[in-house]
Amino acid sequence: MPSPTKSTPDRPAQRRQRLLHELKQKNVPAMLVTDVVNVTYLTGFSGDSSYLLLGKGVCLLISDARYTVQIEEECPGIDALIRKPNESLLKAVQQGVKQAKCNQIGFEAGTITYQHWQHLEATLDKIEWIPCDGLVETLRQVKDATEIAEIRLAVEQAERGFALIIAGLTGEMTELQVAHDLEHAMRRFGAAGVAFDPIVAVGARAALPHARPQSQCIADAPFTLIDWGARTVSGYRSDLTRLVITGKIPPKLAKVYRVVLNAQLAGIEAIRPGVRGADIDRIARSIIEKAGFGRQFGHSLGHGVGLHIHEAPRLSSTSNDELEPGMIVTVEPGIYLPGWGGVRIEDDILVTRDGCEVLTSVTKEWDEIQPK
Amino acid sequence: MPSPTKSTPDRPAQRRQRLLHELKQKNVPAMLVTDVVNVTYLTGFSGDSSYLLLGKGVCLLISDARYTVQIEEECPGIDALIRKPNESLLKAVQQGVKQAKCNQIGFEAGTITYQHWQHLEATLDKIEWIPCDGLVETLRQVKDATEIAEIRLAVEQAERGFALIIAGLTGEMTELQVAHDLEHAMRRFGAAGVAFDPIVAVGARAALPHARPQSQCIADAPFTLIDWGARTVSGYRSDLTRLVITGKIPPKLAKVYRVVLNAQLAGIEAIRPGVRGADIDRIARSIIEKAGFGRQFGHSLGHGVGLHIHEAPRLSSTSNDELEPGMIVTVEPGIYLPGWGGVRIEDDILVTRDGCEVLTSVTKEWDEIQPK
Repeated sequence: MPSPTKSTPDRPAQRRQRLLHELKQKNVPAMLVTDVVNVTYLTGFSGDSSYLLLGKGVCLLISDARYTVQIEEECPGIDALIRKPNESLLKAVQQGVKQAKCNQIGFEAGTITYQHWQHLEATLDKIEWIPCDGLVETLRQVKDATEIAEIRLAVEQAERGFALIIAGLTGEMTELQVAHDLEHAMRRFGAAGVAFDPIVAVGARAALPHARPQSQCIADAPFTLIDWGARTVSGYRSDLTRLVITGKIPPKLAKVYRVVLNAQLAGIEAIRPGVRGADIDRIARSIIEKAGFGRQFGHSLGHGVGLHIHEAPRLSSTSNDELEPGMIVTVEPGIYLPGWGGVRIEDDILVTRDGCEVLTSVTKEWDEIQPK
Repeated sequence: MPSPTKSTPDRPAQRRQRLLHELKQKNVPAMLVTDVVNVTYLTGFSGDSSYLLLGKGVCLLISDARYTVQIEEECPGIDALIRKPNESLLKAVQQGVKQAKCNQIGFEAGTITYQHWQHLEATLDKIEWIPCDGLVETLRQVKDATEIAEIRLAVEQAERGFALIIAGLTGEMTELQVAHDLEHAMRRFGAAGVAFDPIVAVGARAALPHARPQSQCIADAPFTLIDWGARTVSGYRSDLTRLVITGKIPPKLAKVYRVVLNAQLAGIEAIRPGVRGADIDRIARSIIEKAGFGRQFGHSLGHGVGLHIHEAPRLSSTSNDELEPGMIVTVEPGIYLPGWGGVRIEDDILVTRDGCEVLTSVTKEWDEIQPK
C-alpha cells in the first residue's frame, strides 16, 4: 500500500540530513540503523527485516527480494542492497560496510541483539562500533508536516471509529466485544489497526490504569472508560481516552470528573514552546492534589506520540524535556479509586509556535457526555 | 483473562523440569530467560516485560506491580520478584541473580539486546554468561497435551471465522476488507486476534507468496487465495491456506490446483515419527517437479507452528529436523505463475505415535470449492 501522504518535499531525505548532521557533531562517520521504526522514519520504507547504513556518501537500505519493488516505490534516492535468498542479513551488512569504507560505525545498542552485535564485531573486526542510542529518537520528537498530517489522520480514524461504536453500543456488549468492534470500525475508516490494545473498562475496572478488556458487560455499571487510538498505514498513531456514561452516575463521579477535566484543561493551557515537561505535569497535578486526590493519580501526565505510542518528550514530574513547535504529546490526568472506578481524559496536543493546538475533538463536556 | 485450558497437571512445571535437565547436561547451573514467548511457555504467564530466572533451587519471575495479581493466578508455584516503580528490570535481575547464588548463568543471546547484556555483564561482573540459544525452542518443538488442545482451538477459531467470511463474501469486497472482517470474525469465536497478518490475494496477486491485502476487489478475478490463522488468548496459533473460487476458472488453474493438492496429500501421507524434514519436502516437491512446475515452487514445504507462527521443526530441502510425536507442522506446497496467479494449499498436521493427524478440516476438494 503506497503511503497516503507521499511526501513532496522528500521528508525522509531531510530527516537523513539531520541525522548526518548529528553524526558529524559526534564525529561518527556512519551509522547502522537497526530499529525498524527508525528505518521507516529515515527512509519511508514500510516493510521490515531491513537495516539502513547511513553515512557520508553512503545511504544503503539492506533488505531482501520480497521488498525490491516496494523499496523502489517507497524510497526514491535510496540505494537498496538486496541480499540473496541464502544470504543472511548480517552477511549483507558486511558487504554494505565494506562499500562504506569507514572504520567507525554508530549502532543502536538498545535494539540490536547481543548475537547480531557479536557477529558484526567478529566479522568486521577492523570497525570500531559506537553506541548511538537516542539519536534518531531525539529527531523523532519534533514532527514534520508529513508526520503531523499522518497523526491528524490517525486522530480522525480513531474518532470516527469511536463515534460508530458509541452509536451502536448496547448494555449486553462485553468490554472485549467493544474493543474488537472498535478496531474493526477504525479500519473501516482507513486505519491499519489499533495504535495499541484498547482499554475498555466497565465501572470499578476503570480503577486499573492498564485494565485488559474482559467479559464484563457495559450494563454492569453506569460508566465505562475507553482508552484507544488508531494506527495509520504509514505507522503513525493517535491516543485518546474518554469516559462513556450509560446510566445514572453517583455524585462522586461527577465531582471526580470535573477535577480531572479541570486538571487536563490547565495542563493543555500551559503547553507552549520552551516549557518543560515537569512544569506541565505540576500544573495539572496540583489541581488534582488541591482537590484531595493527589494519591489517586499515580502515573505521569503525558507522553509524545508518533511512530511509537509512547515516545519522547515526557510530561512527568521528573521530565526536563523542553517543548518545541512540532512536538505532539498526550495530556491524560486520571483519578483512580480502587473498587469504585476511575476517570481519565486524554487528548493529543500539537505544540505550535505560539502555544498549542488540540488535535482531538470528541467531546468531553460533562453535559454532552450524558446518556441521551 | 485466565487461560482457557488451565492445566492439571502443571504443564509449565513439567517444561521447566525438562529445561533444568537440559541445563544440567550442558553444565549450566541457571538460565535467564528473556524471550517473552519462552517466558510464557515456561511459566504460563501471559503478560510481558518480565524475565524468568531458572536454576537448581531457583524459579523467579522478575516482573512489575501491574502483574502481581496475574502472576498469582497464572503461575502457581513460581516466586515473583516484583520490582519497585522506579527500579529497572535489569536492577531487579541483579537482585534475583544474587539470590540464585551461582557464578554461571545461561542467557538468550538471540533476543537480549546488546545494551541489556552489557549492563548485566558490567553490574554482575563475577558471573560468567553462557549463550543458551535454542534450548527452550528445541523443547517447544514437541507440544504437550495442553498445547495440542490450544492449537486445536486456534484451528477451530480460524475455520469458523473463515466459514463466516465465505458465507458473506461479495464481489465488491476488497482484499483488505476481507482480511479485516476475517480477524473480526475469528475474534467472535474467541480468538485474541490473527496469528499473522492474513494474505488475501485476488487473481494474479496470488502469484506473490507474501502479498499484502490491498484494494483489489474479489470480483476482479475468478479466484482469491487466503492464507490466515487465529491466535488464542494463550498465544497459540493456527495457519491455513485455501483457494476460494468465485467464478469461471481457466482449465490451467484446475490443473495447477490438482498438482498442488496431490503434492500436499503426498507430503501429509509421509508424515510420521523418525522421518526428516528434508524427506517430506522432497516427496511433495518431486510431484510438483514431475508436473513441470518445480521452478514455480520457490519456498520450503512447511514449518512448525505453536506460540510462534514459524518455529522448529522445518520441512525444507535442507532440514535435518527429525519428526517426533507431538510436533505440529504445516504442509503448504504452492505453484506461482507471475502475472497470472498462484495456488497454495496449507493444513496443520500433528505427528502422532504411528503417523499423523490433520488438525484442519475445511474442504480442499476441487468439486467442493466450486461456486454454488
